[in-house]
Amino acid sequence: MMLRSVLAIGAHPDDIELGCGGTLAAHRAAGDAVTMLVVTGGQNGPGSTAGRRAEAEAAARNLDCLLRWGHLVDCAVTADAGTIAVIEKAIRDTEADVIYVHAPDDSHQDHRAVTAATLSAARHNRRVLHYRSPSTTRFEPTVYVDISAHLDRKIDALSCHRSQVENSAMVDPEVVAASARHFGAQARVRYAEAFTPARFVWDLAPVPQMPLLTGIPAYPARVPA
Amino acid sequence: MMLRSVLAIGAHPDDIELGCGGTLAAHRAAGDAVTMLVVTGGQNGPGSTAGRRAEAEAAARNLDCLLRWGHLVDCAVTADAGTIAVIEKAIRDTEADVIYVHAPDDSHQDHRAVTAATLSAARHNRRVLHYRSPSTTRFEPTVYVDISAHLDRKIDALSCHRSQVENSAMVDPEVVAASARHFGAQARVRYAEAFTPARFVWDLAPVPQMPLLTGIPAYPARVPA
Amino acid sequence: MMLRSVLAIGAHPDDIELGCGGTLAAHRAAGDAVTMLVVTGGQNGPGSTAGRRAEAEAAARNLDCLLRWGHLVDCAVTADAGTIAVIEKAIRDTEADVIYVHAPDDSHQDHRAVTAATLSAARHNRRVLHYRSPSTTRFEPTVYVDISAHLDRKIDALSCHRSQVENSAMVDPEVVAASARHFGAQARVRYAEAFTPARFVWDLAPVPQMPLLTGIPAYPARVPA
Amino acid sequence: MMLRSVLAIGAHPDDIELGCGGTLAAHRAAGDAVTMLVVTGGQNGPGSTAGRRAEAEAAARNLDCLLRWGHLVDCAVTADAGTIAVIEKAIRDTEADVIYVHAPDDSHQDHRAVTAATLSAARHNRRVLHYRSPSTTRFEPTVYVDISAHLDRKIDALSCHRSQVENSAMVDPEVVAASARHFGAQARVRYAEAFTPARFVWDLAPVPQMPLLTGIPAYPARVPA
Amino acid sequence: MMLRSVLAIGAHPDDIELGCGGTLAAHRAAGDAVTMLVVTGGQNGPGSTAGRRAEAEAAARNLDCLLRWGHLVDCAVTADAGTIAVIEKAIRDTEADVIYVHAPDDSHQDHRAVTAATLSAARHNRRVLHYRSPSTTRFEPTVYVDISAHLDRKIDALSCHRSQVENSAMVDPEVVAASARHFGAQARVRYAEAFTPARFVWDLAPVPQMPLLTGIPAYPARVPA
Amino acid sequence: MMLRSVLAIGAHPDDIELGCGGTLAAHRAAGDAVTMLVVTGGQNGPGSTAGRRAEAEAAARNLDCLLRWGHLVDCAVTADAGTIAVIEKAIRDTEADVIYVHAPDDSHQDHRAVTAATLSAARHNRRVLHYRSPSTTRFEPTVYVDISAHLDRKIDALSCHRSQVENSAMVDPEVVAASARHFGAQARVRYAEAFTPARFVWDLAPVPQMPLLTGIPAYPARVPA
Repeated sequence: MMLRSVLAIGAHPDDIELGCGGTLAAHRAAGDAVTMLVVTGGQNGPGSTAGRRAEAEAAARNLDCLLRWGHLVDCAVTADAGTIAVIEKAIRDTEADVIYVHAPDDSHQDHRAVTAATLSAARHNRRVLHYRSPSTTRFEPTVYVDISAHLDRKIDALSCHRSQVENSAMVDPEVVAASARHFGAQARVRYAEAFTPARFVWDLAPVPQMPLLTGIPAYPARVPA
Repeated sequence: MMLRSVLAIGAHPDDIELGCGGTLAAHRAAGDAVTMLVVTGGQNGPGSTAGRRAEAEAAARNLDCLLRWGHLVDCAVTADAGTIAVIEKAIRDTEADVIYVHAPDDSHQDHRAVTAATLSAARHNRRVLHYRSPSTTRFEPTVYVDISAHLDRKIDALSCHRSQVENSAMVDPEVVAASARHFGAQARVRYAEAFTPARFVWDLAPVPQMPLLTGIPAYPARVPA
Repeated sequence: MMLRSVLAIGAHPDDIELGCGGTLAAHRAAGDAVTMLVVTGGQNGPGSTAGRRAEAEAAARNLDCLLRWGHLVDCAVTADAGTIAVIEKAIRDTEADVIYVHAPDDSHQDHRAVTAATLSAARHNRRVLHYRSPSTTRFEPTVYVDISAHLDRKIDALSCHRSQVENSAMVDPEVVAASARHFGAQARVRYAEAFTPARFVWDLAPVPQMPLLTGIPAYPARVPA
Repeated sequence: MMLRSVLAIGAHPDDIELGCGGTLAAHRAAGDAVTMLVVTGGQNGPGSTAGRRAEAEAAARNLDCLLRWGHLVDCAVTADAGTIAVIEKAIRDTEADVIYVHAPDDSHQDHRAVTAATLSAARHNRRVLHYRSPSTTRFEPTVYVDISAHLDRKIDALSCHRSQVENSAMVDPEVVAASARHFGAQARVRYAEAFTPARFVWDLAPVPQMPLLTGIPAYPARVPA
Repeated sequence: MMLRSVLAIGAHPDDIELGCGGTLAAHRAAGDAVTMLVVTGGQNGPGSTAGRRAEAEAAARNLDCLLRWGHLVDCAVTADAGTIAVIEKAIRDTEADVIYVHAPDDSHQDHRAVTAATLSAARHNRRVLHYRSPSTTRFEPTVYVDISAHLDRKIDALSCHRSQVENSAMVDPEVVAASARHFGAQARVRYAEAFTPARFVWDLAPVPQMPLLTGIPAYPARVPA
Repeated sequence: MMLRSVLAIGAHPDDIELGCGGTLAAHRAAGDAVTMLVVTGGQNGPGSTAGRRAEAEAAARNLDCLLRWGHLVDCAVTADAGTIAVIEKAIRDTEADVIYVHAPDDSHQDHRAVTAATLSAARHNRRVLHYRSPSTTRFEPTVYVDISAHLDRKIDALSCHRSQVENSAMVDPEVVAASARHFGAQARVRYAEAFTPARFVWDLAPVPQMPLLTGIPAYPARVPA
């Protein structure tokens, strides 16, 4: 049984849900394994660190994805060998064959650093897709995933980040839905998430799907030590 | 009293409303004169030519803008000397100092032709802004107009084009509102229309506004011979 | 049984083989239906029209794809309503859900015209990928298909176009292999064809593959009236 | 009385004058408040620190703008939280609604760092425009300000930086005038400064101008503690 | 004795002088053969056709270059097989190894058409450089030629086109000098012309120069039948 | 006797050979002086530091170029004042008038840092060309050097880096040859190396070549203290 192993990487709790939460839900629905790597604890945003950790765990549970923490510090990420090593280890551990990460042009220094470190760590990977964040500055997507069946799930997962939804001007579920419709129209579907590929090898016969697949037990959000 | 003279150019009835209807309403609210130049009669879309003409007149009335027809034929526009002359005349007649037109990268041949002809006709103008159409293929906007107070008006004007709203997959008021919210978030306002400038001279002290200005009579949609 | 329906479009006989012949072979291997639409008869290149027609049929047979002719004239293609109609009909007839066509920046006027007409005809399609030609002028690919198992087949199909391989400086199997290795290294596979997406909706669970699939009879190259 | 509040940010003394000195003069002429934030003392260029400070004060006086220092060190600026905080404070203190800063592609590391930090600090602002420096490497302007009435003032202000004009190959008033004419021709005016917008919301009815406005006293260059 | 053969192509009389007149003078000074191909007679600009022909001849004489006419009609050039054939013949006749032509993004339809036709005609050439025109809309040059010793000659040649200098807002020697200084500063020389390469093979050991070279007789402007 | 002085800069041993080894051989064949500046010792790749040093010396000897070390540490290069100073000194010492360096968009942090530092250090130079590395992420070359006569030499020099050729997926002579053929076809020659210019002033009459030139003694690889 061959499944895709998906690794989504974000600088802060809620970044991944904002950027590609619907796509991760679609991957799970297709039977793929999905791990979310949150590089920092989001120490600088609104909300306590413990609270944000709990929110991220709830969101991952909601999306039925594994959760993994990078243990770096919010607003102090650099694309150095240490950050690259954290991401390389996640790629190795998950044997990722699809990687999602922030878009390169972004006004948040942590986002830029995580993206640069990911491009380095993923230098041998065949599929690296950039998602959009509210702070992304340039973004001309050409690749889309249809999330019409998963938008609700995305909003639900995002809503788990209550400290952000309530206090950050950047996190607004109404905008998330509007952007999904906007990109959906571009993609000729109803709701879509949009991506710019760093490198995307389209696998024409990707995954011999087992009929039993939908029966595998959902795995719980887990925080590696 | 100096007012801005605005000229919005579109290939077909409904193109202008879709692309910059809210901005035109904002110009009218600021006291500017606005003319819409519809280059063809939209002969090839759904709806009769007479019907589409009436729809366009209703929409222009709704936006309180002058309407002007280019009398070219739908799906057969080329950026030749004839088309350029039609647009040059509109620029001269209106003494336009702001021009709106389709974005250059568009899958519809008429849109591309109208844009090319406009760039030629407007070669001496200081302000040419490209708006987005559902068929636009590449578009990275950097200039926005806040249409939060005018989105309803835009949707109303668009709804006048009943033949399109009901029959064309490309004309969907729900998507129009979603895109306005999407671009609004990018612009840090609520609802926005987005533009790419061909050339935009920002006039720091543009229009000595008369206090009486809001009292000028609305002018009716008019079809020049 | 759901299969993908693939439509590859090229201006002249041999364009499709050069640009995406390996990918078409990979689609056939994955059980997809593939149609090649050759828009002109290649009247202006070296070789007789009848000869080129026979070469194209041999190449399509080699790739096990359907062949369809557009009946336009070499070096005189324009992106007008007539050309668009030819392509729209092919899209409708094949119910294409993946479309391949030339890249937009190309020094050959026919290539540019076919691409523009395709973008118009495919305005409702979710997957349009641009392939590279020897005359392509700008091309920064981000999407790839692994053709390591199909490069020989590509070269074989191309070699059917003997009149071109022997007489055109632009058609050189050695360069074709070199480019496939170059793009393969970029894609982190051995041999690849490279694409720029106009619009690509990645279908995470595309095709419930039947185990019998490899047993379907190869269909012969056919020239519709 | 609503006036625009303008904040111009540069890495070193003379950067702002070179990039947008004419535009700042035009803002002052339109009655807007203007603050210049010089992030470093220019310790590494020719001239003593005290001398450069005096030159900057003279230039600001010449342009009738407030001057504010960032107190970072020349050639050692990074886009970290500290630099961002300095700029955030200036934005807050001035309630800036227009921000000018270096273009992102620049061979000077300080320029790149100041731009990155500004994009982060100004993440909620509606108007951020990038100006060109002699070390800018890529720059395709689309937004211009007509400085025909202010070029002399720009050159005067620049000339206050005698240590640079006399000793740096990068600071040459003759080139400044030539570039203003070059960009003026692009903008269809006589002399212009050119900008690339990070984000520019065009305010169609920006500033209810009071007739008394030209009577407000010019405010002196001031160095905050 | 091997000399470079240079072919400069422009849509109208004066286009070549505006775009690369200084560079042609530099080529002549280096001993290269230079032919100017003017594709149309400039029938639509100010000035009679005969007058413009005489002006072009005077300018070519001034630059000591051969002059060749394309005999197409102003404002009606298309990039079709006929235009391509005119340019192919010029390339063949001159055995050109360097070709100069308009930049592709230009608001004048003739300029775009001449550029497209040239890229097609020059498909086997190793050196095709695009020059800038006043109507060029996008242009980010990376290649320059130092014309510090030839700016006067460029202005002289341009001044031969009296009908344009006196009557066209687009032809202004003052702007020509300003742009040369602007691009010179970018290139780290005094005056430069700027180019974007379509394709440029840098010949490290290009031309075994004979010492007698400066003694070859200047050849007169000639109009082929 | 005027010769060009060429400076090629790379982050690690083997980077220069991969990116522009054939071009350096062509420069030597044209009689130019060539220095290779290797910024780090390649401490993090496969192979001992002493071994890599010896490999680099052998490769430089093979290409008949001078070798110079930057003494920075692999995977820890930043574009700070120290790195800039190392490169400025190399430029000054060699009086470089042509500089080669990595392309700016690259997934390796050292490559990006070396490029940024070089653009700063070379701010007064007229010719800076970017070469491609296996980790380069975006690259649209427009400038080429014909290395048909030097490909073997390039492969030989690269093969001196045995520790890399044998152990790094990124260093594969077969790919090097394929890319040279791919870029050669783009350049209309047999084998080429490809470049994107940061700034390239084309010297039309560059180097009065002395007939004796081929007789100058090859200079040995030398490691400055």
